[in-house]
Amino acid sequence: MTKTYQIALLPGDGIGPEVLQAGVDCLKALKGDFTFEFTTFDWSSTNYKQRGYYMPADGIEQLRRHDAIYFGAVGHQEVPDHISLWGLILPIRKELQQWVNVRPVQILPGTQSPLRGVDKIDWVIIRENSEGEYAGQGGRSHVGTAYEVGTELAIFTRVAIERVMRFAFDTARARDKRLCMVTKSNAQRYGMVLWDEVANAVAKEYPDVKMEKMLVDAMTVRMVNNPDSLSTIVATNLHADILSDLAAALGGSIGIAPSSNLNPERNFPSMFEPIHGSAFDLVGKGVANPIGAIWSAVEMLNFLGETTAGDVLMRAMVKVSADGVRTRDLGGQAGTKDVVDAIVKELGQ
Amino acid sequence: MTKTYQIALLPGDGIGPEVLQAGVDCLKALKGDFTFEFTTFDWSSTNYKQRGYYMPADGIEQLRRHDAIYFGAVGHQEVPDHISLWGLILPIRKELQQWVNVRPVQILPGTQSPLRGVDKIDWVIIRENSEGEYAGQGGRSHVGTAYEVGTELAIFTRVAIERVMRFAFDTARARDKRLCMVTKSNAQRYGMVLWDEVANAVAKEYPDVKMEKMLVDAMTVRMVNNPDSLSTIVATNLHADILSDLAAALGGSIGIAPSSNLNPERNFPSMFEPIHGSAFDLVGKGVANPIGAIWSAVEMLNFLGETTAGDVLMRAMVKVSADGVRTRDLGGQAGTKDVVDAIVKELGQ
Ligand SMILES: CC(C)[C@H](C(=O)O)[C@@H](O)C(=O)O
Ligand SMILES: CC(C)[C@H](C(=O)O)[C@@H](O)C(=O)O
Repeated sequence: MTKTYQIALLPGDGIGPEVLQAGVDCLKALKGDFTFEFTTFDWSSTNYKQRGYYMPADGIEQLRRHDAIYFGAVGHQEVPDHISLWGLILPIRKELQQWVNVRPVQILPGTQSPLRGVDKIDWVIIRENSEGEYAGQGGRSHVGTAYEVGTELAIFTRVAIERVMRFAFDTARARDKRLCMVTKSNAQRYGMVLWDEVANAVAKEYPDVKMEKMLVDAMTVRMVNNPDSLSTIVATNLHADILSDLAAALGGSIGIAPSSNLNPERNFPSMFEPIHGSAFDLVGKGVANPIGAIWSAVEMLNFLGETTAGDVLMRAMVKVSADGVRTRDLGGQAGTKDVVDAIVKELGQ
Repeated sequence: MTKTYQIALLPGDGIGPEVLQAGVDCLKALKGDFTFEFTTFDWSSTNYKQRGYYMPADGIEQLRRHDAIYFGAVGHQEVPDHISLWGLILPIRKELQQWVNVRPVQILPGTQSPLRGVDKIDWVIIRENSEGEYAGQGGRSHVGTAYEVGTELAIFTRVAIERVMRFAFDTARARDKRLCMVTKSNAQRYGMVLWDEVANAVAKEYPDVKMEKMLVDAMTVRMVNNPDSLSTIVATNLHADILSDLAAALGGSIGIAPSSNLNPERNFPSMFEPIHGSAFDLVGKGVANPIGAIWSAVEMLNFLGETTAGDVLMRAMVKVSADGVRTRDLGGQAGTKDVVDAIVKELGQ
């Protein structure tokens, strides 16, 4: 019996379409008792500028019919970022209840960390993806006056903290049983203290996992000075956003970092996206690093249960990198297509 | 005529007393037509545990009588961090209207950045120090229930953004006229968008300064990948907290980084503190790096108008580091006292 997976493609902006195509080419080259049906949604900023909206009114409904969403990038110099993000990526994460964002970071064989003497990084960052600093609430008063006030309201619920903590502890348990919980509860005394309390409570359910607490500022120092002392990391929406970009850079390139926006209950499709963003300076030059998107495809395969195929694609990707077929951001000479061709060839062997 | 400066010493917790003593020894060794009168305030966490408070009721009043405050560290494993910080450092910053925090980062001669191939970093991070994510507002509802909610309210006012932006532009103008303004206005649509708007408005007053905008997550990548492309940086209270720790680590060691909590109007004393914190693992071993505290003393001298003495102390500190008298965090063998003795000797020449 051959399974057919319905995949929603959202290429989006900038290099999004190029890297997503690269991922699709790799997925198509995989052999197995499954096939993919890809449906492309042209919800880009360019179209927003013409139509005045990103998704149509039933956009979320349309996405729900798929088994997974494969996302390129969003963000365009001619659209204020808060419009593009709240028009596309953030409502998808929220309305499809993709409440955890998983971001593995490793140094790819053949590449190197910008940190002296560091040749191994193996982190998984678990990001709370449904609330916190991205809850979307806040406002502005006395607009335009000298005494104008703007606010941003970060919201932390026991429900959301508890589920993301369990997810993090489960992840740590399946790895090496070390979890680093990040917080800023010294300066923030309410929601962040709740975060700590829930973490401590959930920790009791996992006596075999060693949980440490770090403040987000000190965490950046530890990532730089002692990367090996870290393994699985859990943090709020904003803290993990910042730490995962830093992590990707320390791992060698933001161009390789994948991310999975998961709905672990599988009530709704999950979404897989490279974390690099639009990178307009690279558009159309054929030099964008496709690894972030391809690695995201690996994560998608794994989440769909196609772990054999996921392994095969991951190994091909790693092999090609080790063989030296690498884009410029990784110190190589290859173009996007060279990398894809090499991986597809590898998959054909 | 000899000026006498009244300096309030707040050694605080952990290695605070050791490094502050180091700074005081250096200040005392300086020659010039000024003297210092030091008054020590024992507002530590150890005393908090006995007395139930950090500062007495008239603590701020007592501090106000001084020309400057020289601060060690606060934070103790037996006191929840939000109690210690909101009992001591944060009320001082707020009530004495120290609305900007200035954090220079450089690689000390003789030391090296953990980044491969990087031999120069020269950043000044300007931190909004009076509001934002540290405004102190928020709350908890349905405490202890499964549906508990905690919030943290970040507050941004035009007044506070404008003054910190002008300070940042002035700093950039006095340096190389490059200012990088950090924000997260893609995910945060209210207060952070006001931040951007005010930055853009203030930028018009400084046509000679080139202002760039970066998102806080991407900023960490740029600091790692392209440190030379950055010079003066301005960011919110939390963003700059995170970026300045990262910056210090990339500059070689958190142990050398100084910070100045300034009240630029000089209505109230300003406060000078190393950014490293209590570091209980180092207490009493005589190995703590005193440079962060000594560099903070340099900043204090400069702000008091004693720029000649500030230069002399800075040069002595740099010379001793270049000569190899460095603590372990900088790859050396020296203890705290060795560094201080060498600097004092240098000052005596
Ligand atoms: C595009 C933006 C909303 C996003 C975020 O801040 O979550 C990005 O930086 C990321 O990390 O996925
Ligand atoms: C001690 C703490 C309140 C503080 C902060 O977060 O501001 C520290 O991390 C700093 O950077 O000065």
